Amino acid sequence: MNFPTLSDIRAAHDRIRPFIHRTPILTSTAINEIAGCEIFFKCENFQKVGAFKARGAANAVMKLTPGQRAKGVATHSSGNHAAALARAASVAGIPSYIVMPSNAPEIKKKAVKGYGGEIIECEPNLKARETTLEAVVERTGATFIPPYDFMDVIEGQGTCALELLEDQPDLDIVMAPVGGGGLLGGTALTAHYLNPTIKVIAGEPTGADDAYRSFHAGEIIPQTGPNTIADGLLTSLGKLNFELIQRYVDDILLATDPQTIEAMRLVYERMKIVIEPSCAVPLAALLANKDRFAGKKVGIILSGGNVDLGKLPF
Amino acid sequence: MNFPTLSDIRAAHDRIRPFIHRTPILTSTAINEIAGCEIFFKCENFQKVGAFKARGAANAVMKLTPGQRAKGVATHSSGNHAAALARAASVAGIPSYIVMPSNAPEIKKKAVKGYGGEIIECEPNLKARETTLEAVVERTGATFIPPYDFMDVIEGQGTCALELLEDQPDLDIVMAPVGGGGLLGGTALTAHYLNPTIKVIAGEPTGADDAYRSFHAGEIIPQTGPNTIADGLLTSLGKLNFELIQRYVDDILLATDPQTIEAMRLVYERMKIVIEPSCAVPLAALLANKDRFAGKKVGIILSGGNVDLGKLPF
Repeated sequence: MNFPTLSDIRAAHDRIRPFIHRTPILTSTAINEIAGCEIFFKCENFQKVGAFKARGAANAVMKLTPGQRAKGVATHSSGNHAAALARAASVAGIPSYIVMPSNAPEIKKKAVKGYGGEIIECEPNLKARETTLEAVVERTGATFIPPYDFMDVIEGQGTCALELLEDQPDLDIVMAPVGGGGLLGGTALTAHYLNPTIKVIAGEPTGADDAYRSFHAGEIIPQTGPNTIADGLLTSLGKLNFELIQRYVDDILLATDPQTIEAMRLVYERMKIVIEPSCAVPLAALLANKDRFAGKKVGIILSGGNVDLGKLPF
Repeated sequence: MNFPTLSDIRAAHDRIRPFIHRTPILTSTAINEIAGCEIFFKCENFQKVGAFKARGAANAVMKLTPGQRAKGVATHSSGNHAAALARAASVAGIPSYIVMPSNAPEIKKKAVKGYGGEIIECEPNLKARETTLEAVVERTGATFIPPYDFMDVIEGQGTCALELLEDQPDLDIVMAPVGGGGLLGGTALTAHYLNPTIKVIAGEPTGADDAYRSFHAGEIIPQTGPNTIADGLLTSLGKLNFELIQRYVDDILLATDPQTIEAMRLVYERMKIVIEPSCAVPLAALLANKDRFAGKKVGIILSGGNVDLGKLPF
């Protein structure tokens, strides 16, 4: 499999730059004291659509041929990829068809509609999502842009670590959460190219630990019955993503939901920024394994800030 | 009364610069669209101690004589000034004595203790605060640093608008919330010096509208029985502050609590930052008076982010 090269990732960055924010890196003296290391938070909660997903979606849409553009794009997603794809399509002036489970959070449906995406509802299971999507693609001729198991999306997500390491080249460790593995795969690839001595460590919830189990088994073990507050990390690893993780990720650390809620509260209280639970998992995993990080410079990608404010776990 | 000159405010900025953050200015396309004007948010929620109060307290402490320093500082405050003074004293290596009402929020007590301040509890009324403070000052010889009705504090708070107008000199309007009037007074003074054509407009809750009533009556009408979610704006205007407001503030606009909560939610959802209710009052007042701001460039000082996460009003 030919993964994107560093030139590819840089080209993706040039391609999407007009459509995304270069997000800031924030630090907190108080959190550094608690953690016993120096943390640089790459704030993708401030990204367009409130999540790093804006990168991969924009990259995939901007790479479409004129013929593909004419018919639009489609995907199935309950989360940030849905809004990200709808927005990227809207920016490109093409239609988007988003298959969403009927129980998707209202805030995420609102976001998709706000960007002019057409929502097609389905039963809340993977089978229904896939068959509904197939029907939509057949009807419209739209191009399917998968949320993570797709090279152009991984390439786009890799631009986040590119910015992080441009701004802060002397990191010892980079951390990202892992769900499907789009962000983690892109991050690991970029870090590998820019500085192979940087350790890449993922954070994953104990209630959806398929990446952890797959990583140690050496083969993909799909997630069944995920149970965690980190609602962006429920899906199973993608194939391309797993290959990247096997090659370039150094470790996957777990965090329980109470640990994740505590880390989330710390970020709200000390940094005064809004993050979604999935986003707090790497910090929670770090705090649960402080010895591993003592005295290091650690970049943590805060992946998004789309949380239902009426249901904060505090 | 001799108010601080522009040189005084610039000198205050130099004096406190090592001890405060130069906070960022954030913008939101989505909020601009809703508001019908261009808003530049000066994010003092990212300030040390989570509020602009770090400025005035640092300025007052750094201006003490060596003799005064030796005996420390004291104040009565239920809020951000308490933490700000304790921190400024801690940075200066001197003791601080903070009189707090027994019903002050736990998070604010924790902050004061965290900075090494000594808390002296009293009954939750102004009389008890004042007599307890007098006793503390008598016992310790500490210098009383009032929260807002004090020249060195106003001078320090004026440094916030200094940064805002350095970074964004072409504003038509600057807005700040008004409680005791320290931030508003300092802001109005700085704006007046830097560009007298800039309008300065305050936001105040309808449930604690003494500044509005005083402004229109031409004399201080103290606040009795305040009733608002904006817990940083409960106090009555100070004398110095009122004089500044009469001279340099163009208008005071009111916002109801539901309007404030809606504005607060907008900031959390669209900007992904944590602010306290008091902080959302100017945006709420703007949104309730959109015609006044149509097409203008408006600077809004987001005064602080110290909110009890367990009691968010969403």
